[in-house]
Amino acid sequence: MNGSVTDQLQLDPDRLLPADGGARDIARSLYHAVADAAIISPHGHLDPATFVADGAFSDPAELLIVHDHYITRLLHATGVPFERLGRDPEAFNGREIWRAFAERWNVFAGTAPGYWIAHQLVELFGIEVAPSASTSDQIFDAISARLAQPEFRPRSLAQQFRLDALATTDDPLDDLAAHSVLAADDSFPTRVLPTFRPDAYLDPAHPAFVRKVDRLLAAEGGTGFAGYLDALQARREYFIRRGAVSADHGVVQPYTVELDEGTAARLFDDARRGKLDPAGTREFAGHMLWQMARMSVEDGLVMTVHAGVHRNHSTGTFERFGPDTGHDIPVATEFVRNLHPLLQSFGLDSRLQLILFTVDETTFSREIAPLAGFYPSVLIGAPWWFLDAPDAVLRFRAATTETAGFYRGSGFIDDTRAFLSIPARHDMSRRLDANYLAGLVTSGRITMQQAETIIHDLVSSIPGKAFRL
Amino acid sequence: MNGSVTDQLQLDPDRLLPADGGARDIARSLYHAVADAAIISPHGHLDPATFVADGAFSDPAELLIVHDHYITRLLHATGVPFERLGRDPEAFNGREIWRAFAERWNVFAGTAPGYWIAHQLVELFGIEVAPSASTSDQIFDAISARLAQPEFRPRSLAQQFRLDALATTDDPLDDLAAHSVLAADDSFPTRVLPTFRPDAYLDPAHPAFVRKVDRLLAAEGGTGFAGYLDALQARREYFIRRGAVSADHGVVQPYTVELDEGTAARLFDDARRGKLDPAGTREFAGHMLWQMARMSVEDGLVMTVHAGVHRNHSTGTFERFGPDTGHDIPVATEFVRNLHPLLQSFGLDSRLQLILFTVDETTFSREIAPLAGFYPSVLIGAPWWFLDAPDAVLRFRAATTETAGFYRGSGFIDDTRAFLSIPARHDMSRRLDANYLAGLVTSGRITMQQAETIIHDLVSSIPGKAFRL
Amino acid sequence: MNGSVTDQLQLDPDRLLPADGGARDIARSLYHAVADAAIISPHGHLDPATFVADGAFSDPAELLIVHDHYITRLLHATGVPFERLGRDPEAFNGREIWRAFAERWNVFAGTAPGYWIAHQLVELFGIEVAPSASTSDQIFDAISARLAQPEFRPRSLAQQFRLDALATTDDPLDDLAAHSVLAADDSFPTRVLPTFRPDAYLDPAHPAFVRKVDRLLAAEGGTGFAGYLDALQARREYFIRRGAVSADHGVVQPYTVELDEGTAARLFDDARRGKLDPAGTREFAGHMLWQMARMSVEDGLVMTVHAGVHRNHSTGTFERFGPDTGHDIPVATEFVRNLHPLLQSFGLDSRLQLILFTVDETTFSREIAPLAGFYPSVLIGAPWWFLDAPDAVLRFRAATTETAGFYRGSGFIDDTRAFLSIPARHDMSRRLDANYLAGLVTSGRITMQQAETIIHDLVSSIPGKAFRL
Repeated sequence: MNGSVTDQLQLDPDRLLPADGGARDIARSLYHAVADAAIISPHGHLDPATFVADGAFSDPAELLIVHDHYITRLLHATGVPFERLGRDPEAFNGREIWRAFAERWNVFAGTAPGYWIAHQLVELFGIEVAPSASTSDQIFDAISARLAQPEFRPRSLAQQFRLDALATTDDPLDDLAAHSVLAADDSFPTRVLPTFRPDAYLDPAHPAFVRKVDRLLAAEGGTGFAGYLDALQARREYFIRRGAVSADHGVVQPYTVELDEGTAARLFDDARRGKLDPAGTREFAGHMLWQMARMSVEDGLVMTVHAGVHRNHSTGTFERFGPDTGHDIPVATEFVRNLHPLLQSFGLDSRLQLILFTVDETTFSREIAPLAGFYPSVLIGAPWWFLDAPDAVLRFRAATTETAGFYRGSGFIDDTRAFLSIPARHDMSRRLDANYLAGLVTSGRITMQQAETIIHDLVSSIPGKAFRL
Repeated sequence: MNGSVTDQLQLDPDRLLPADGGARDIARSLYHAVADAAIISPHGHLDPATFVADGAFSDPAELLIVHDHYITRLLHATGVPFERLGRDPEAFNGREIWRAFAERWNVFAGTAPGYWIAHQLVELFGIEVAPSASTSDQIFDAISARLAQPEFRPRSLAQQFRLDALATTDDPLDDLAAHSVLAADDSFPTRVLPTFRPDAYLDPAHPAFVRKVDRLLAAEGGTGFAGYLDALQARREYFIRRGAVSADHGVVQPYTVELDEGTAARLFDDARRGKLDPAGTREFAGHMLWQMARMSVEDGLVMTVHAGVHRNHSTGTFERFGPDTGHDIPVATEFVRNLHPLLQSFGLDSRLQLILFTVDETTFSREIAPLAGFYPSVLIGAPWWFLDAPDAVLRFRAATTETAGFYRGSGFIDDTRAFLSIPARHDMSRRLDANYLAGLVTSGRITMQQAETIIHDLVSSIPGKAFRL
Repeated sequence: MNGSVTDQLQLDPDRLLPADGGARDIARSLYHAVADAAIISPHGHLDPATFVADGAFSDPAELLIVHDHYITRLLHATGVPFERLGRDPEAFNGREIWRAFAERWNVFAGTAPGYWIAHQLVELFGIEVAPSASTSDQIFDAISARLAQPEFRPRSLAQQFRLDALATTDDPLDDLAAHSVLAADDSFPTRVLPTFRPDAYLDPAHPAFVRKVDRLLAAEGGTGFAGYLDALQARREYFIRRGAVSADHGVVQPYTVELDEGTAARLFDDARRGKLDPAGTREFAGHMLWQMARMSVEDGLVMTVHAGVHRNHSTGTFERFGPDTGHDIPVATEFVRNLHPLLQSFGLDSRLQLILFTVDETTFSREIAPLAGFYPSVLIGAPWWFLDAPDAVLRFRAATTETAGFYRGSGFIDDTRAFLSIPARHDMSRRLDANYLAGLVTSGRITMQQAETIIHDLVSSIPGKAFRL
């Protein structure tokens, strides 16, 4: 499956732009207008402590492979067990992990993680040969050498990346100490924002629900359902005071329901005693998503919903290696009926900003774009997870733009755990937007002047407004 | 979001044709072969009284914005309340409505309504500058001046549009007086056909069901379920005598079921007394769709089914501003099992002509094309509503043609409430068909001679046969 | 609907390659690298007796039309009854059947069967004019003349086709005598492999279930559920000894469930007595799919699952003309939850090889590629049935590659009943892979060297490994 040792690694300066010469020239011009624009990353999964410590990254495999479940999942599928991918600390051997990856370079051909890693190898590490069994050590050593240099420290990289704003994802009871340190440090210009992510506190099906809610009530001093709502509101305010602009919600289905307070309180009490049946669990979680929208109307936190993922599909893998190990699998998702109660209550209220992310691309043209093309409160989230890849992004644009245009979307969201992939991801998005816009220009659907305005807005005012930055 | 005041508005003569030079030449040749062909519009929502009165249109906003829910929905989404979009008659200010639209021109960039309105501004009104805050009044005045000219009266426009046949959508108890006037008037060559649309008479879930059925029975003098069926049959015949060629059915799911007469009669009686539960309601409505197919077999009315729309999603908007205000949202739709009873009874009968329209594009390759590629009675409806846009139309062709070819479709249907958009929509369709056919020619899948035959058939014999015109 | 009599039939040597010149050159180079490679056909529906008898084919219509339900279904849809398509042996008239097809040549324009038949007419039969009413007899006679020649015998064609391996689909109680004859005959180099297809023995909803199970138990001498499992295992071993490499499973939904032996045995007993309700039927069939995976882990038969088809949709057609007459219709299909129990038990076991085929293309990006990109046991099946067509294949590649790459797929599967279409289908697949790969190269996503490796692997090592050949 491997190319020969002489295979070069290069980045085509016109990569992802249209094949046709006329369209390519237009796309190139559009891309270069925003290629060096600052990066806004309003949703992601980096650890803010990385920037507080600002230490050197230890190992190429640890940095680029081990925590990137896009990459480890595909290595696992081709027969590399997680024990050999750094999940067993005692057996950790970065060079061997890197080799397992390098030997399987062609496995990643045509994939999104393959594209991002090539970008990083060339742009960040100056690698000029493709990974393979015979080049593995040479590349590993070259990356290691770079990682020892001061300009490869996290803060330095953030500045090289022109990272204006970076949102993390945080537990509601997190004290956000790292965020406070960074906010107080004038020498680090990147704005690092916390994001309120309360899933485990809202869904009785979550294994930690009872424990989390107990801690929440203890921390805020409340009791009962009313105290619970107050405590959640208080933690949202705590986050807002520390710079949070959004609250994020991961759900299998975006079911919502308005309940009278008595019913909700009864379900809450049953849930805390572990006595809620599946139907009651669904009602309570659906009501809490409705409550989060109500709070967003009041406190202004943008509400992002990431729906449609069956988490931890392989119980055996989860029990041995934990979550986020590559076996979260999408399922068909429904927004129109599930969000109906929420939108009946708050959909016309311009104080609500609800951004919908999906891994079920059938919903783009059928549900999400039609909703965002009517409700002032609904925005279309960027292509997410398995859909954050060139062909999928172009399908997303084609599926949503004709109904909702460019200004009902969130702008690009990298949503990554892989810090060094951020520039590659944003660069990919900008190239694809240039590609799609060039197609509209050459097919006579918009003018070049419109395209120039739009590509600028897509990297600045659109994400800025979407996340109220 | 706006382009500068100097942004021009022009129509690329090769718009929507392929980017590649060779394919573009072929597509251009195919397009020009049908660019000026007469328009057949066998399904739509114009008011026939417009052509009886033949008065001047009053106002650019009233004509182009206020009643076009494609446009108002997107203005609403970007923050313009319906009160400022002409829904409040006392506050109506056409110039200000037009300004709200012109200021948001870039919101429509890449959308289908944006494409159609540009076509109309240039082709019909000779506008040469893009809408914007600074050009709004100038464009408003230019359109107003044109609307005062006699050639902008409805009948004159219909002739300029080469509108051969135009179907309206009518209540079964409509007396069709306007249609009779037009049919008797030799000076107006467009054939204006009524369409039988009995939804409110068939589905007990419709709020007007009881009242409508009462009126139907009173009008036709029948009683009970048998009388009800007779009355429906009589009204179909009334429509047929006045030129109707089709009956149209809007349903959320195209569920059908054959029931014995006793069961159906019992459900009917319960429905009239408002005593039918949801399951019974579904059974009765499903049975009536089956009955409509049975009647179509007997009387020859083409049966069109428009499925999969959650109507009036925002109750608050519906209560204040009524239906057709932009918040009908698609839902996942199922044809294979739902239509099974109907097709078991009548699917092999060549007297039935059943045309399936969907807003769930996943059904094109999975359900609709496979059904139409087997059953002589089933035809694939044109891309509808949110799918009537360039990228979506090309997806539709790619999703259906490989299974069912070009001759199992309905031809293009504009289905519009916006009279002046009809030429833009049919022109768009012809360009996209030329585009798709050129791709088949350049990829060696059909010959140029086949493409030339097909593009002619697509605008004439295919819709003509589909609607038995 | 027909072209004129002078319309030529030619195959563009660059058919299905990209329109753009640069990409076309690359694609052409990739295609020619594998154009003449041997054909591996690891799943299909030919009768092995054809190669034992090795007799001349009798009639062009019998050979190319009558048994190809892709073609007869579309003729049926356009109004040709099955009685006139050879399904009535007494009225069989090959020349008239051929004429019904030739007159409707444009009905097939843009379809997959139209593409394949054109390939066969030109490449195999040297036809140079397009089918039409006026050329029908001339073509019929030309094909008939060729069929009389010795090089048109099945074995000779198999060698001309470079058919290395050909799998048939067989009843578990088949004695596989034809396979044994062929395996023992050194003069016929094509490896003809049986495939174990036990649907009727596993699903109590199958009309022949009771009778088939009785015969199975009688043949193998077992009793009860344990005896039934032993008998199935024994028949699998019988197949393996005669060269089988895979077991194939056709299901509406790929539902699986692990049951304790007592429950399974009770359901089995009820099923044999015809006393199982629908819920029990689903449980038992779902458990037997789980059991088949268990046996595959042990005996190494590759497990292929073909899911999501509503078989014999038109009962009237089925009763008069039997199965496989063109009215199997796809339905929405779900893999993630349905396969969960099976994958919990065996998904991480590298001895299992589970290949998933679908006719619901929404599952490619949402479910199948994500599953195959994690589980070492899951592979993505080739585009199947209505999706085995140029545009659909390119959609398949775009929907799966970015998540799972090229090495988590099965390679191309023709799955055909039409022997003479095999080269056309594999040639089409190779052209489309070259097309897709060329797009990746020109957009800077992979190198030419990678593309060259991949296109070779796609026709040799990938299907070879997928089916353990």
